[in-house]
Amino acid sequence: MDKVKVAILGATGFTGEKLVEILLKHSKAQAVYLASRILESAPYAQIFTHFSGKTNLNCEPLDIEKAAQISDILFLSLPHTVSMEFAPYLLKKGKKVIDLSADYRLKDTVVYEKYYKVSHKDKVNLKKAVYGMPEIYKKEVKKARLIANPGCYPTSIILALYPLLKQGFIEGKIIADSKSAITGAGRNAITKYPYTDISDNLWVYKAFKHQHVPEVESILKSASNKAVKLLFVPQVIEAKAGIYSTIYVSFKNKVTEEKIRNTYEKYYKNCPFVRLKEDFPKLKETAGTNFCDIGFALTEDGKAAVIASSIDNLIKGAAGCAVQNMNIMCGFEETLGLL
Amino acid sequence: MDKVKVAILGATGFTGEKLVEILLKHSKAQAVYLASRILESAPYAQIFTHFSGKTNLNCEPLDIEKAAQISDILFLSLPHTVSMEFAPYLLKKGKKVIDLSADYRLKDTVVYEKYYKVSHKDKVNLKKAVYGMPEIYKKEVKKARLIANPGCYPTSIILALYPLLKQGFIEGKIIADSKSAITGAGRNAITKYPYTDISDNLWVYKAFKHQHVPEVESILKSASNKAVKLLFVPQVIEAKAGIYSTIYVSFKNKVTEEKIRNTYEKYYKNCPFVRLKEDFPKLKETAGTNFCDIGFALTEDGKAAVIASSIDNLIKGAAGCAVQNMNIMCGFEETLGLL
Amino acid sequence: MDKVKVAILGATGFTGEKLVEILLKHSKAQAVYLASRILESAPYAQIFTHFSGKTNLNCEPLDIEKAAQISDILFLSLPHTVSMEFAPYLLKKGKKVIDLSADYRLKDTVVYEKYYKVSHKDKVNLKKAVYGMPEIYKKEVKKARLIANPGCYPTSIILALYPLLKQGFIEGKIIADSKSAITGAGRNAITKYPYTDISDNLWVYKAFKHQHVPEVESILKSASNKAVKLLFVPQVIEAKAGIYSTIYVSFKNKVTEEKIRNTYEKYYKNCPFVRLKEDFPKLKETAGTNFCDIGFALTEDGKAAVIASSIDNLIKGAAGCAVQNMNIMCGFEETLGLL
Amino acid sequence: MDKVKVAILGATGFTGEKLVEILLKHSKAQAVYLASRILESAPYAQIFTHFSGKTNLNCEPLDIEKAAQISDILFLSLPHTVSMEFAPYLLKKGKKVIDLSADYRLKDTVVYEKYYKVSHKDKVNLKKAVYGMPEIYKKEVKKARLIANPGCYPTSIILALYPLLKQGFIEGKIIADSKSAITGAGRNAITKYPYTDISDNLWVYKAFKHQHVPEVESILKSASNKAVKLLFVPQVIEAKAGIYSTIYVSFKNKVTEEKIRNTYEKYYKNCPFVRLKEDFPKLKETAGTNFCDIGFALTEDGKAAVIASSIDNLIKGAAGCAVQNMNIMCGFEETLGLL
Repeated sequence: MDKVKVAILGATGFTGEKLVEILLKHSKAQAVYLASRILESAPYAQIFTHFSGKTNLNCEPLDIEKAAQISDILFLSLPHTVSMEFAPYLLKKGKKVIDLSADYRLKDTVVYEKYYKVSHKDKVNLKKAVYGMPEIYKKEVKKARLIANPGCYPTSIILALYPLLKQGFIEGKIIADSKSAITGAGRNAITKYPYTDISDNLWVYKAFKHQHVPEVESILKSASNKAVKLLFVPQVIEAKAGIYSTIYVSFKNKVTEEKIRNTYEKYYKNCPFVRLKEDFPKLKETAGTNFCDIGFALTEDGKAAVIASSIDNLIKGAAGCAVQNMNIMCGFEETLGLL
Repeated sequence: MDKVKVAILGATGFTGEKLVEILLKHSKAQAVYLASRILESAPYAQIFTHFSGKTNLNCEPLDIEKAAQISDILFLSLPHTVSMEFAPYLLKKGKKVIDLSADYRLKDTVVYEKYYKVSHKDKVNLKKAVYGMPEIYKKEVKKARLIANPGCYPTSIILALYPLLKQGFIEGKIIADSKSAITGAGRNAITKYPYTDISDNLWVYKAFKHQHVPEVESILKSASNKAVKLLFVPQVIEAKAGIYSTIYVSFKNKVTEEKIRNTYEKYYKNCPFVRLKEDFPKLKETAGTNFCDIGFALTEDGKAAVIASSIDNLIKGAAGCAVQNMNIMCGFEETLGLL
Repeated sequence: MDKVKVAILGATGFTGEKLVEILLKHSKAQAVYLASRILESAPYAQIFTHFSGKTNLNCEPLDIEKAAQISDILFLSLPHTVSMEFAPYLLKKGKKVIDLSADYRLKDTVVYEKYYKVSHKDKVNLKKAVYGMPEIYKKEVKKARLIANPGCYPTSIILALYPLLKQGFIEGKIIADSKSAITGAGRNAITKYPYTDISDNLWVYKAFKHQHVPEVESILKSASNKAVKLLFVPQVIEAKAGIYSTIYVSFKNKVTEEKIRNTYEKYYKNCPFVRLKEDFPKLKETAGTNFCDIGFALTEDGKAAVIASSIDNLIKGAAGCAVQNMNIMCGFEETLGLL
Repeated sequence: MDKVKVAILGATGFTGEKLVEILLKHSKAQAVYLASRILESAPYAQIFTHFSGKTNLNCEPLDIEKAAQISDILFLSLPHTVSMEFAPYLLKKGKKVIDLSADYRLKDTVVYEKYYKVSHKDKVNLKKAVYGMPEIYKKEVKKARLIANPGCYPTSIILALYPLLKQGFIEGKIIADSKSAITGAGRNAITKYPYTDISDNLWVYKAFKHQHVPEVESILKSASNKAVKLLFVPQVIEAKAGIYSTIYVSFKNKVTEEKIRNTYEKYYKNCPFVRLKEDFPKLKETAGTNFCDIGFALTEDGKAAVIASSIDNLIKGAAGCAVQNMNIMCGFEETLGLL
């Protein structure tokens, strides 16, 4: 069988690099086009020398027509507000698009414009875009032509909360205390921090104001059929890879550990990348993987809980999930190239 | 002026080692006796070779009579349940005692016995013990003969909350999401974890069940004149030193940033080791110091906040605070040997 | 095509764990038997919870007869002196054996006994064992029934030196200053070091006395047809994975950079896992890979050089190389499952 | 007694920051002037917020006249080629100057110009400058008006070799394989490396070509009364602080461990910051200290050795040594403020 031909537009960011890494090992997909908006043409293994011996592909200046011509599926690993410049053309050409930016995640363009400071330029496709969280929207993903790949923090928070909200257990505001490796900020952003500012450090930033809040709230609202208030406090930690969210919820009625456990198991029984832990997850166990590990503990009175979820921010939180979506869209085994 | 003569009983734990390090540089105190309950007599610089060139003291098998004879102030850096075996004798001999274990922190012996699994053996002195948090109890510390030096997590949490509770701003339960370096577990405990289990890792443990909960709740209750409910979720992080607590509170009435800032400033204006930050604290800025850095942000509606506090768990959270207490007890400058 | 059935004896050490990880992703091999000499039977994903969702295999108490019965190739990831107790039986049963211990690496049993403190118990098979360094002995590996998989330090040193010795360029003693991640010491050994002894640390150990010296010297002697004297100084560093050797050599005659570069290229032109770098290798670029990266610089007079080589100690230095050997023995693509 | 008034010119580099940190704790020196060539005037504790609560000093745009007016001793923590613009004026004004750049380290201006690419502008003072390595030149330091504070790598290498060269034991070329924390590159340089390039990494740079080679060779030559050839291969490691040099030497005649040990002890018996170790030094034991730890091992034939030395690159390798020089120049206890 011929392999699916894939392009990665924005191949030199952290996420793009991870996409290339995963796709080079994929048995049913073939990377045929790597592009950057800023660099001159050069062997990819020269830009990232650790790819030497793994690929002879060049990374080329982004030529959207060429990209459309030679590939079947295109991953847009571009900055927010840039993806929506390219997606319409690709969709018109009948291509499948998996967008890793925020451009197609928020159905409400007013909210988008508030957080990303530009008007949305592609409202037509925005309506059709599917939020690519396979654990929740697998059916929609299967038929989608445009995937809005979830943000890293939202992945860790939504997967921890969705079943409990869907079941109507939770009431009141939800607190998410999320710790992320610095790579979540992107390759350009982290050059602002010299090594000595990150090593042995940890700090809160953008408390209550992070752009991922509306993304999470809109998905959680669809689960619970009413507005959900999220207090989100992101933090930078030194760990090499990952996001670890500790999430605090209150319950309408007293619950038992068994009830919560059963709920998770029911919702995620066909989800190969969600692992419900006996105890709390460990960040290191999801590093380098596409898994989301979840654990929880109830307060003695059964009226509140802490839920912890752990992912690799660049894999399950970005590139891995994008490939998982590709697998589903192409009718491949969901786990292909990801275990 | 003659220097105050100090003994460190339990000089080979992480806290004991840090005490020795601080006291060797102290201009008005002289370490005269280092003791361990388990090791044979040996030069301290042989047990911890990095002390070579700094001290010729031996570390001796603990002889409580000798300890009392040659020292004025004794630091008990002993395991919980062991301190209360030695403190009564020392107090009877008229010595000042600074106990870094939990033995004299909880006035309620029922609670003590619940968490530490033994009956309290020294209820007489327990009543007289002063909780050694100088930012709150400086007057009492000044006159104390027995100090119960606060726990590391409690220090980070209480300092962040005390002024706001004292002012009556906070209502409802409080969540403390605290991240600690592994050294908080003590030297013996961390040998259970090989290096590879700690590096690049982070995990929740003892959620809602940690033994520091009643310590925090009892002090906070004294601030607010009513019971305070703490949901405490400790976590291990890889950082070399420190505790970073992010604390979530709700307010009775809408507050402003200015009001909260003024409250902290008023309470801590004479506290040289509390720094109120413009932004959020950074873990690294308190590492190796006796400072507690505090920062906060309000939700848009002014009805809730996240407060972050950062300390070095072995210094402000243990040995440094103990020396701060010694300074106050001896009438020295509070910051002596600690800046 | 049926997959080759493989067993991993000693599946719970660092190397055994890495073998399982690699083999679970291998498209032409199937792990059918995991065994430990010390643990009770238990799901492998329970012993190492990060394998949850990846395998349902049990790890069983080592039963050598069962192992032989159900597998075609057996990896012995056992301590030195233990492998040679099991290998003879497996060979007699016609199985292929890849031994990751030192038991079959040293042809000279006097030297073996000097370093490993026991008499060699299987001199018959020792003679037939092939030193499994595919870059040098690919032909022999192809036909081998018993592979002595190279040590981690030797891999990094031999690959850097072999072509230059074979060409007769080098004279005089050779210095290898090698830095290794602590995992090289094995899972049991590293529990002797608490986290705080390893973090931010670096130290020399076993200078000139490491057991890998005779292994390196014997292979280098076969390259140069005369005795080679190695001064080997291993060091522990904090890095998560890898060995980085800086090697100092003198040349008989003045050489040029081009001459050295050409020599490496000629020798390694068919070696998919050796990468000759333009500049010096970086430890991180080989972490998590089966590559050995090599770089060098000459002194101004062209009479001496520093050569640096970088590998992942558990992959190219152990498990990855073992699978590379398996690939060759089975007639698979050499890189299968390793890129 | 009045405190000595000190100025730090270049207070915002890594070395300048460390100088401020040490001098703020010094009991006989008072920092009165902090200056930067590039920043606007601002509270030092605002530029480096971790100094909050420790100093109210401003950091001002460098005004050399003001600096001279209000201080007795000036530390020039300026880039190479900049120090020599300011030193002449200060010396003319009768001030004592401790220069931490390379400007006054190399007596041979031809060599200086080769490595630093500019003509030397102050040959008059260059002749009078004393190389500030107190372990070797304490007498000269005591009387000096201009100190050329040693480089970090040279400190680690020279202290390891000086006694053995002075005794005439060593012959042939010397190899120094030195690993340094990234901070050695300076605050500006390390911003070129994002965090992800440094973490878990290690690499060789400037092999045989580093600008510290002539500095080491010239001091070693003065010890041995003949030219010494150094092959120097610096490497970046992830450790937070420190340089660890492993140095390879050959001996003219067979030596014993006792002989080498006695030689070190004799030379360093009055040197409070050199510690001869029983075994090899550990990088972590010198981190945060002004010590240089030294250990060694001989080859079996007693004809060669590896010597390892460990320092904190910013302390003993820069700011700490500078303060040690100040102590000597002012007649203070050599260790004041440094233990």
